[in-house]
Amino acid sequence: MNIKALVKILGFVLCFEAIFMLPSTAISYVKGQYDFLSFLLIPALMLAIGIPCSLLKVKKAKLYIKDGFTAVAFSWIVLCIAGALPFYISGAIPSFIDSVFETVSGFTTTGASILTDIEALPMGILFWRSMTHWIGGMGVLVLALAVIPLIGGSGINLMKAESPGPSTTKLVPSLRKTAMILYAIYTALTLLEVLCLRIAGMSLYDAFIHAMSTAGTGGFSDKNLSVGYYDSVAIEIIITAFMYLFGLNFTIYFVALTKNILQALKSEELRIYTAIIIISIILISINISHLYNGNILTSVRYASFQTVSIMTTSGFSSTDFNLWPSFSRSMLMLLMVIGSCASSTGGGIKVIRLIILFKSIRIAFKKITHPNIVKTVSIDGHAVDNNTIFNVLLFILLYIVVIIIATLLLSIENFDFTTIFSTVLTMIGNTGPGFEMVGPLSNYSFYSDFSKIIMSLCMLIGRLEILPILFLFIPRKRSSIK
Amino acid sequence: MNIKALVKILGFVLCFEAIFMLPSTAISYVKGQYDFLSFLLIPALMLAIGIPCSLLKVKKAKLYIKDGFTAVAFSWIVLCIAGALPFYISGAIPSFIDSVFETVSGFTTTGASILTDIEALPMGILFWRSMTHWIGGMGVLVLALAVIPLIGGSGINLMKAESPGPSTTKLVPSLRKTAMILYAIYTALTLLEVLCLRIAGMSLYDAFIHAMSTAGTGGFSDKNLSVGYYDSVAIEIIITAFMYLFGLNFTIYFVALTKNILQALKSEELRIYTAIIIISIILISINISHLYNGNILTSVRYASFQTVSIMTTSGFSSTDFNLWPSFSRSMLMLLMVIGSCASSTGGGIKVIRLIILFKSIRIAFKKITHPNIVKTVSIDGHAVDNNTIFNVLLFILLYIVVIIIATLLLSIENFDFTTIFSTVLTMIGNTGPGFEMVGPLSNYSFYSDFSKIIMSLCMLIGRLEILPILFLFIPRKRSSIK
Repeated sequence: MNIKALVKILGFVLCFEAIFMLPSTAISYVKGQYDFLSFLLIPALMLAIGIPCSLLKVKKAKLYIKDGFTAVAFSWIVLCIAGALPFYISGAIPSFIDSVFETVSGFTTTGASILTDIEALPMGILFWRSMTHWIGGMGVLVLALAVIPLIGGSGINLMKAESPGPSTTKLVPSLRKTAMILYAIYTALTLLEVLCLRIAGMSLYDAFIHAMSTAGTGGFSDKNLSVGYYDSVAIEIIITAFMYLFGLNFTIYFVALTKNILQALKSEELRIYTAIIIISIILISINISHLYNGNILTSVRYASFQTVSIMTTSGFSSTDFNLWPSFSRSMLMLLMVIGSCASSTGGGIKVIRLIILFKSIRIAFKKITHPNIVKTVSIDGHAVDNNTIFNVLLFILLYIVVIIIATLLLSIENFDFTTIFSTVLTMIGNTGPGFEMVGPLSNYSFYSDFSKIIMSLCMLIGRLEILPILFLFIPRKRSSIK
Repeated sequence: MNIKALVKILGFVLCFEAIFMLPSTAISYVKGQYDFLSFLLIPALMLAIGIPCSLLKVKKAKLYIKDGFTAVAFSWIVLCIAGALPFYISGAIPSFIDSVFETVSGFTTTGASILTDIEALPMGILFWRSMTHWIGGMGVLVLALAVIPLIGGSGINLMKAESPGPSTTKLVPSLRKTAMILYAIYTALTLLEVLCLRIAGMSLYDAFIHAMSTAGTGGFSDKNLSVGYYDSVAIEIIITAFMYLFGLNFTIYFVALTKNILQALKSEELRIYTAIIIISIILISINISHLYNGNILTSVRYASFQTVSIMTTSGFSSTDFNLWPSFSRSMLMLLMVIGSCASSTGGGIKVIRLIILFKSIRIAFKKITHPNIVKTVSIDGHAVDNNTIFNVLLFILLYIVVIIIATLLLSIENFDFTTIFSTVLTMIGNTGPGFEMVGPLSNYSFYSDFSKIIMSLCMLIGRLEILPILFLFIPRKRSSIK
């Protein structure tokens, strides 16, 4: 990939990002808070750099997978560094590393924070903080798909590098149209949630904050107690429902809209995803019931919200689940690793990959009793080819290798193992809260800058599904850079 | 597989086990301790049942892999229950579940104990306890290979089901001869260690106890402080060296003996195994040096012993590594999972499988930059076929799935996560000690009976490399039982 094409893409990324900062500019102006100047200067600067870059003339050329990886990795890094500027320049977050951490946490829809008192921040800053979730949820480059025709190539390799899940279903022949439909569904659902939260009694501002964070399955709230602040069953039900919906594979909505709902409901991933949530809620409700004096309704209320929040990798909390018994805590850690559906806005290994893993294991066992059996894994009635299965197994193992390496690196801090291990799981899974020192009422400010950089890389690796970021660290022979 | 053939094999297992109890009978007679009666009656009873069973006439029939799995799983269960009788009947361990746990821990060469005061036990009992390590190290059914010709079939499927590692190298054409050679190397190395420990100042009895436990990479000591009791650099060096040697792939000795040493030293698994140990010792030495006032020799001394002990899954300790900083603790947990070489007496995932995993990952990355490249994984210059690679990846994933399920089940106890998680890792890895409540100076007596059964299953699953034990839980159609 030539440098010019890369610069052009990065230029577009800057422009898009600048535009999404404007609502914060408006809020900070209306409220007259100290962040106004930053929200005026920074987007202006980004446009000043971005527009000329995006106008570069680039020779059309074939786009290879590796080019997709390079473009995606650099786009996200530029996105995060530019996005950190309002936090840093306004002084809302005094440390630059902390500002980048918070922004990476935003765009990767993790929702882990280094802020000790969220409510002290100006409204424009908090709006931008949740906006990063909303932008990151759908993947900024799905948005940038519109750019691809400009630099040639079909763009499918760019989408492959960014969009989650083992298979990129092309919903409609044109990628541009696919992106438009996905964004339409995404925006409609977000606005619907704003409406519901408003009816349930939230202010319009708070409703937008929480809806954008839910949509990206991010988890940033503007309250120190997260959703627990409202102590409202209605709000919890609304957010639970939308977290569940945003954790679903978006192609299900597409099928439901264009074909029929019954066919959409037949999706195996949808069923297993729902089954895992229901079983987890039942087990956790039983396990925590003694904390609520055996009141089963209260147990189910807290179990449901926390389970859906962690499984969809949102990371909101309505109670301090750090105080729950070991079994529930272990269950939540497992849900962090499993994550949501492929092609959703959530993180984790994704349900579809686990379905493929367990089907492979079942077939391996069958082959012991029937050595000559010919059996293949199939999903929704379609056979999955061996290459895909192999890549899925390798992906899960690579995910675990990253967990192990990150755990070792964070262990240098000499905190207890549960804190470190849950930090790593929650970062790579893009969840947000962890356990012990990083529980839902705590934050990540006490980690060293070195650890914060490791954590930021973990969030990016988790969000981009490992390869594009690791790819940057591979030494390449001169011949293959070109 | 017909029932008669299974009974015949189990009969042989009982006879072998009874014979190995006789040294303990002799010791308990000489010392006149309270365990003598049990060591007289139990082997007699086992022989009374075992001999008639082993004399059963069985029609020769082909032996399938599933038959191997069934035979191995049942043999180990009979072995462990019969082996627990001396502990229980003599009253040395009052609870039957505890007795079985201790015996499973012995035969699987784990070395995890429920005993709070080891030194209070009679000498015959402690000798039997370490003898279980020695028997388990080589696999009782490699021994029972002698039986196979009697019931027909080549026996390769029996060996496949029990012996560790992705590929069963047939060293010499006859399986019986292979088993003989392996046992000869095993016995010679054990006796050499007894000699070395005797010269270093141990009593003959203690030397046998520790040599048998080292040979099986088990870790049972007759001292409450484990090897730390002696506080002798010479003894630590001897045991470290032999732990390393017993953690090696035994085919390396075979090649060294029959071909030449240089070729044996070229083994990739040997090199990576050694490299991991050296790197771990260096990193841990640096990390713990402040605990020993910056004395680097003392740090290296303790780091070496503990690293080799955990990596080979022996589980001896010469200091309380539960007090070490987080990084060293995380390193040791990782080493528990990695384990020793294939076809050694140690546990864990095994180094060779990780080599295959990392080579697969490297090729996957190469394919991103060079999509049309044709590359396969090769070990020691030989290509590994895709089916083997696939099974290796699936094995590692199944290993992790078992870790997750066991962690959830033990979490019901409501102990801290580090205790539970390290318990599971140390059980499945057949290591022995863990962290926090189950550190090297602690024991497993406080767990409930339910948890002890789960832990026993974990040890068996780890030792038999997962499949044979899980196989028992698979519902089978009538037609395939026969």
